[in-house]
Amino acid sequence: MGSEENTTNSEVYENQSRLKVTPPESRFYRWVLQKLISAAGDPPVRIRLWNGTVVCAPNHRYTINILSKSAFYKLLVHPDLYFGECYMSGELTVEGNLVSFLEDLYLHRALAQQRGGGLQRKLISKILTPVRKNTLEGSKKNIYSHYDIGNEFYQLWLDTEAMQYTCAYFPTESATLEQAQRAKLDHVCKKLRIGPNDTVVEAGCGWGGLARHIAKYYGARVHAYNISHEQIKFARQRAKEQGVDHLVKYVEDDYRNIKGRYDVFVSVGMLEHVGIDNFGALNKVITGALTPNGRGLIHSIGRNVPGQMNTWIQKRIFPGAQTPSLKQMMDIFENGFSVLDVENLRLHYAETLRHWLQRFEANLDQIKPMFDESFIRAWRLYLSGSIAAFSSGQLQLFQVVFARNRDNTIPLTRDHIYR
Amino acid sequence: MGSEENTTNSEVYENQSRLKVTPPESRFYRWVLQKLISAAGDPPVRIRLWNGTVVCAPNHRYTINILSKSAFYKLLVHPDLYFGECYMSGELTVEGNLVSFLEDLYLHRALAQQRGGGLQRKLISKILTPVRKNTLEGSKKNIYSHYDIGNEFYQLWLDTEAMQYTCAYFPTESATLEQAQRAKLDHVCKKLRIGPNDTVVEAGCGWGGLARHIAKYYGARVHAYNISHEQIKFARQRAKEQGVDHLVKYVEDDYRNIKGRYDVFVSVGMLEHVGIDNFGALNKVITGALTPNGRGLIHSIGRNVPGQMNTWIQKRIFPGAQTPSLKQMMDIFENGFSVLDVENLRLHYAETLRHWLQRFEANLDQIKPMFDESFIRAWRLYLSGSIAAFSSGQLQLFQVVFARNRDNTIPLTRDHIYR
Repeated sequence: MGSEENTTNSEVYENQSRLKVTPPESRFYRWVLQKLISAAGDPPVRIRLWNGTVVCAPNHRYTINILSKSAFYKLLVHPDLYFGECYMSGELTVEGNLVSFLEDLYLHRALAQQRGGGLQRKLISKILTPVRKNTLEGSKKNIYSHYDIGNEFYQLWLDTEAMQYTCAYFPTESATLEQAQRAKLDHVCKKLRIGPNDTVVEAGCGWGGLARHIAKYYGARVHAYNISHEQIKFARQRAKEQGVDHLVKYVEDDYRNIKGRYDVFVSVGMLEHVGIDNFGALNKVITGALTPNGRGLIHSIGRNVPGQMNTWIQKRIFPGAQTPSLKQMMDIFENGFSVLDVENLRLHYAETLRHWLQRFEANLDQIKPMFDESFIRAWRLYLSGSIAAFSSGQLQLFQVVFARNRDNTIPLTRDHIYR
Repeated sequence: MGSEENTTNSEVYENQSRLKVTPPESRFYRWVLQKLISAAGDPPVRIRLWNGTVVCAPNHRYTINILSKSAFYKLLVHPDLYFGECYMSGELTVEGNLVSFLEDLYLHRALAQQRGGGLQRKLISKILTPVRKNTLEGSKKNIYSHYDIGNEFYQLWLDTEAMQYTCAYFPTESATLEQAQRAKLDHVCKKLRIGPNDTVVEAGCGWGGLARHIAKYYGARVHAYNISHEQIKFARQRAKEQGVDHLVKYVEDDYRNIKGRYDVFVSVGMLEHVGIDNFGALNKVITGALTPNGRGLIHSIGRNVPGQMNTWIQKRIFPGAQTPSLKQMMDIFENGFSVLDVENLRLHYAETLRHWLQRFEANLDQIKPMFDESFIRAWRLYLSGSIAAFSSGQLQLFQVVFARNRDNTIPLTRDHIYR
């Protein structure tokens, strides 16, 4: 609301759209910008430089302002990374709806990639953003940098009830965020057929909402692991307040250190931080943690084809994160387990993120004193870009239910989820 | 019913179980048999040779009679293949329930394989049973040898209504085969949200039951492909009888020659005959056949880990057949498509096969005049072994629903399947 990026001045648009190219001192800039637009699959944009140079794609609906020469050259070297960096620093601004702009950008880029290319960009990307490995130490650093920046901040835009920082489940499009997050928790519990005699282990519990929900509404005992200190502190406090601390034990430790045997293994939104190289290790953890008739569920962001996370997101938002394709995810299961059910909730994540972005913008007055302007811009870009990634099919959300290879106690149908 | 394999004489068992080994002329045979039993993971069997030699595993519940020296040596060379061959020829018989015996055998062998080994067997298997490639010509031969052996035969043990030679869907355990096959057809149609304005292409339509069901109950137009001449003939006849031939067109051709664009692509039980090497080609077929908002479903036997079909089944029952793991199946989808839903119906296939075997045995009087004794034994072993493979988790049944990458008309939830 009221941010410069969201104002659309249709009058300015109409006036300027008549002159296809406004030529100042240099043909060079225009030539480069046209190459850049073409490499991005000709999204409907106009680019305006600090020196007044303007290049328009046909039927442009958005204007990108590149406000410094250094931003211009950085964008040439690595558009994926420096679009985010320059947006964050304010050297680049977008006129028009940011989410729609990014959706258009992703769609056009995907079409351009289908036509080939991209190798050079991948190589540069590897050099510029070395990934911090998800060793026990590396994971801690990766997680602190995102999840330990302040519970108060997250409380301003996540659902109030369960503090779910993962995809919700919208039974209908009109459900509130609170209803949809609660429905997600129930959806997970029903898929896992959790009952009062079960023991549950949760790998990566966030602020502990699922564990408390399981204890409160399904009566099961839960051991919930997380390496984020701030989240664990919050989770313990809430469990005490809600009188379920006798059923829920929050363990400040890595999923690789899970001890004990459980009827249920559940992990919602942690796999993205595990890293594809560690899927074999995760298989071993689950193999050790599940009883013979145990069942499991992994809920994770994924993709339709193997690929890297956006470079800027990797650098600024989720260091160490990777989003696997289903084929890649199968390395977790195709060693002792049987996949029973996969559901793709992509559209639910786009909707969840729309709610988050809306609350984020609505609460800017409270957020601004917490962080500097570049953080606010980064977060806006991150949430907007994520909406665009899910709504354009760049990212998927997979819920995979599994059991041991030879377990014949699995349910015959999925009726129990929909009853 | 009344076949020698199914009689259990508990008195004989008890008397003979006291003598662990009955030694005749040669220690050699006993030593070899003990190795064989141990390599199979010590299933609870007793083996009796033509010369009276007997070796018992602890707590044996079944007796295998090896009735000739040549059978004995063939079993040593390649147990997987020659168990079937010798059972078929009558050189090997099994006392005790054949299905339970095979279930026990599979379970014990799986445990033994977890402990390692099996490479030598795989090599020999490759030499002894060259796989006929699924080229356009090869596929025809592979399919004729199984599906063109007589519609009258299949009618004696498949469901009468829809002649489904694929896994049924049992809404409850007490459903009849007819109810369960009809429920399967509805389950598939609901997953695909088929309506009266849709056009549907079916790859591998068997005797045409699904296509007729879609026309009759969902009002859609169907083009159904199959290379089995006998099945197509039967399907056309039935469609005419049921008055749906204006909606259903049966095409006697390979799935690779599918023409046109459709709202729905569906394939139930054909993928096993496609071959993993051809999954890329199948992807191209589907890419070409689906409208932008089209949706698809592939229903196929699969496995939890990549592996070969049983050698004897490959040789005698399903030449050219391969059952992929989900990871392998992803090669069909991870190029332009988004997997929306995977359901594993393994237990349903075990139950379906139990119905088939029971009807097969009940109708032996009518089947015997059609085929020789070795065919009957082969079919009994095939059906029994398939029950065991599904109930022991050796095989899975996957239904995969998919849509194009960026299709946002996909349903938000799976409620429409369970309404």
